[in-house]
Amino acid sequence: MIQAKPCLIAPNPQAKGLTRQVAGLDHLGAEISLNVVEERPLTIWLNGQEIVTAMTIGDYPEYLAQGFLSNQGMLTKDEIVEAVDFDAELETVVVRTNRPTNYEAKLKKKTRTSGCAVGTVFGDIMEGIEGLCLPPALLRTSWLYSLSHQINQMPSLYLSAGAIHGTVLCLRDAPLVYMEDVGRHNAVDKVAGWMRATQTSGADKILYTTGRLTSEMVIKCALMGIPVLASRSGFTAWGVELARQVGLTLIGRMRGQRFQCLSGQERLVFDADPSSEEEDRKHRRKSAQ
Amino acid sequence: MIQAKPCLIAPNPQAKGLTRQVAGLDHLGAEISLNVVEERPLTIWLNGQEIVTAMTIGDYPEYLAQGFLSNQGMLTKDEIVEAVDFDAELETVVVRTNRPTNYEAKLKKKTRTSGCAVGTVFGDIMEGIEGLCLPPALLRTSWLYSLSHQINQMPSLYLSAGAIHGTVLCLRDAPLVYMEDVGRHNAVDKVAGWMRATQTSGADKILYTTGRLTSEMVIKCALMGIPVLASRSGFTAWGVELARQVGLTLIGRMRGQRFQCLSGQERLVFDADPSSEEEDRKHRRKSAQ
Repeated sequence: MIQAKPCLIAPNPQAKGLTRQVAGLDHLGAEISLNVVEERPLTIWLNGQEIVTAMTIGDYPEYLAQGFLSNQGMLTKDEIVEAVDFDAELETVVVRTNRPTNYEAKLKKKTRTSGCAVGTVFGDIMEGIEGLCLPPALLRTSWLYSLSHQINQMPSLYLSAGAIHGTVLCLRDAPLVYMEDVGRHNAVDKVAGWMRATQTSGADKILYTTGRLTSEMVIKCALMGIPVLASRSGFTAWGVELARQVGLTLIGRMRGQRFQCLSGQERLVFDADPSSEEEDRKHRRKSAQ
Repeated sequence: MIQAKPCLIAPNPQAKGLTRQVAGLDHLGAEISLNVVEERPLTIWLNGQEIVTAMTIGDYPEYLAQGFLSNQGMLTKDEIVEAVDFDAELETVVVRTNRPTNYEAKLKKKTRTSGCAVGTVFGDIMEGIEGLCLPPALLRTSWLYSLSHQINQMPSLYLSAGAIHGTVLCLRDAPLVYMEDVGRHNAVDKVAGWMRATQTSGADKILYTTGRLTSEMVIKCALMGIPVLASRSGFTAWGVELARQVGLTLIGRMRGQRFQCLSGQERLVFDADPSSEEEDRKHRRKSAQ
């Protein structure tokens, strides 16, 4: 019997303000009352610059802001965050650095020449992974099965209200930080923000997500310095290509004892005994296709 | 036996360039070869303004660009598109209007005062649905079951390669335009682009999606003028709130004979006989939570 190890941060589906009861009708016209997740706007600022408005369940705005900015390449590892100010009433969070960031300088320059610089964010992110090479690491398949099992057993908004994505930062066979949000990117960004705030390295970690393994997801994992990315869901060709480029171990369609590895196979140690593992079917998550 | 009616646009999973064979290992270390969906960047311009780089499977760039701009409130119904130029090599699509758009004017103004105007897009979108009220319509539950059945039977990238979202514009019990993409928002935007290009009204239509019914999804459906939005997936509280604000009929968790309606119940006509409908289990889509 796999014992769940305590997490540093785990979902708290009972927390006030994360879900709401909503009334409606079912397919027979009978009255129903459902528990649905909350979703609210959060405007993220970097110093004096308004960056984006994200839709979030609203539980870790400070981590979401730092993680978002890091994963968009707008806040580099060297830039020092002096303060993170969340204003619940204005639904705004401002990340302040000790000096103007490189991103803000680029924005000013681009704005003077040709207007809004939104389009270049993509270019910057691609530059950010240029030459990036993730560190070697071992990945025991027994850890993957254990993590999957533990994560599926933990109380979560997913189990209580649905319509949610989860991302879990893990160390070997132990979930450490489990974040959920309406958008899978927010869930990943919250983990990234926590890592930045606590100065936690990704080099010896595994990132587990419910989301599909797209180029964006792979890039974020790489920027977070994590050499293993696993999901119940599927792949895109470019996600695989980028994973190979940065040396990321990419595990997808992870269900029960099965999974597919399309990149970084060299890290795998096949030590699990598939016949002895039983997935708790009751808790099996549906994969986001 | 429900006969599938011919679609105007349906997925073509065999089309060149939409998927690719990729090699890897399975959980036992055996070699495998998978069919995975392609994903490539497409930079969208509005006249001289670079707007965003979207990740897409790449099948309808012109519709994606027009739909994206419309659904972001950057291109209004009154603004006339003169040309849509797609450059496959540059992976760029430029939407040109006969006169500079209101959005570009706002951008210039905002840029002069405080830099990049990204953050205000959200504000503009919320303004765009202010006072919006969708038209009355009947929604027979028999149509919902028929649509679900037909859509699940159609060949699709989802069935052949996974990791994809689909959105289908329907008229009563007939699918009309079925778009797929890596991102569910792209799939919706492609439908919106098609509607704009063909000047098709949404007033008598149903929008079926695999994606979750978040605030963004509800807003897009409303901007497309479609009074009914249905999904296999779940809701968010704000999605429900916005749906009620604009008078949208919101149907979620639609699986087999069951569904939940949390907004716009008054359009429903319960004419289906649930006991006689049998969902083809083999084709049942997993819902994106």
